Amino acid sequence: MAARPIAIIGGAGAEGFGLALRWALAGETVIIGSRDAARAQQAADKIKQRVANANISGMENSAAAAASDLIVLTIPFEVHAATLKQLKPAIRPGSILVDTTVPLAASVGGRATRTLGVWQGSAAQQAAELLPKEVSVAAAFHHVGSDLLMTDGPVDCDVIVCSDDPATSKTVRQFAAKIPGVRALDGGKLENARILEQITALLIGFSIREKGHAGIRITGLPEAAYNIP
Amino acid sequence: MAARPIAIIGGAGAEGFGLALRWALAGETVIIGSRDAARAQQAADKIKQRVANANISGMENSAAAAASDLIVLTIPFEVHAATLKQLKPAIRPGSILVDTTVPLAASVGGRATRTLGVWQGSAAQQAAELLPKEVSVAAAFHHVGSDLLMTDGPVDCDVIVCSDDPATSKTVRQFAAKIPGVRALDGGKLENARILEQITALLIGFSIREKGHAGIRITGLPEAAYNIP
Repeated sequence: MAARPIAIIGGAGAEGFGLALRWALAGETVIIGSRDAARAQQAADKIKQRVANANISGMENSAAAAASDLIVLTIPFEVHAATLKQLKPAIRPGSILVDTTVPLAASVGGRATRTLGVWQGSAAQQAAELLPKEVSVAAAFHHVGSDLLMTDGPVDCDVIVCSDDPATSKTVRQFAAKIPGVRALDGGKLENARILEQITALLIGFSIREKGHAGIRITGLPEAAYNIP
Repeated sequence: MAARPIAIIGGAGAEGFGLALRWALAGETVIIGSRDAARAQQAADKIKQRVANANISGMENSAAAAASDLIVLTIPFEVHAATLKQLKPAIRPGSILVDTTVPLAASVGGRATRTLGVWQGSAAQQAAELLPKEVSVAAAFHHVGSDLLMTDGPVDCDVIVCSDDPATSKTVRQFAAKIPGVRALDGGKLENARILEQITALLIGFSIREKGHAGIRITGLPEAAYNIP
């Protein structure tokens, strides 16, 4: 089977770069997107230096989105709507868009330990509203901070995936589980993304107060919950 | 030092009963409160049968609140405001009120996997507004379900405590840490209670979908985060 490339919009930023690194290490084909194609290429080169034989390239965001049907959005909330409007013509029908965005109050000069209310309920639901029905949206990776992704060790964190489409949720969980240490969980419908996004603000608070890199694990579930069918 | 009794309002319900059981097992003095004094007494008797030499009694809610300066509120959201208004004259200045309430949409006939928006931000902040300034409010125990508390084993769950008063947070964390398996964490100010409350809706979704008793652990924090100063 030919590798399905993963396009990471905003992949030159810390979170996107960390995910790109982990997927490159897992042998996936990764396209780093950035507003600036040269910056995307530089980020890809940095990963090539760290991962021998990495299948990675860098492109302008819209070109990256057009080159893949699995698109991961890792951008700050202040450019969320504008970026999605810009990408919309480039995204192919049938694509999956994974939104990692957290509407932190820091986006408007507030605190990173508070969130903004998003009219649609969450950033991910705003993405779903801005994109055509033929693009399937999932929310995931909010709790796996770039500090955790940049290390070489396993990531002590669950990835909770919310989507209205079970097949989309399954695909995203499969890609999440490629990161060592990560357990991927079905978080239910996309409307639950609001809870995932807010948890990030709580984790940022823990990381600041306790000088750590906070993550989250769900306990008390049977092993079957971690099997991706 | 004389034992400081813990009053559990709504302690004949599943969550309150579970906490009462765990604290009785830890040798604490517990007062179970209920709208019906006889029901409170029955619940206390049930715990006495299970815990030899338990220091436990049962009273009507207001009497229970008056008999302690550490009051734990374990009631459904639909009676949250009314109960606090009723208890208000009984609560002594300087008391701590620990709110475990989650504003589930189930309170108004909706789903237990969704929350209601509370104008003050959270049920705990509603409690703080309804009570005099001399009562210190904390939010905690939202994620330790009654199913976990009723077992004999250790509880695989962190208790995150939010309060505007550091001394209150510390006291509540000390009592949380008396439950075997529980690690108690400082969750910051009371305004963060909104996130704790919403996490419960997410955990209920996991427990339903995966047939488990979901709890939560925060990862990536240094050991010092779990030391209660």
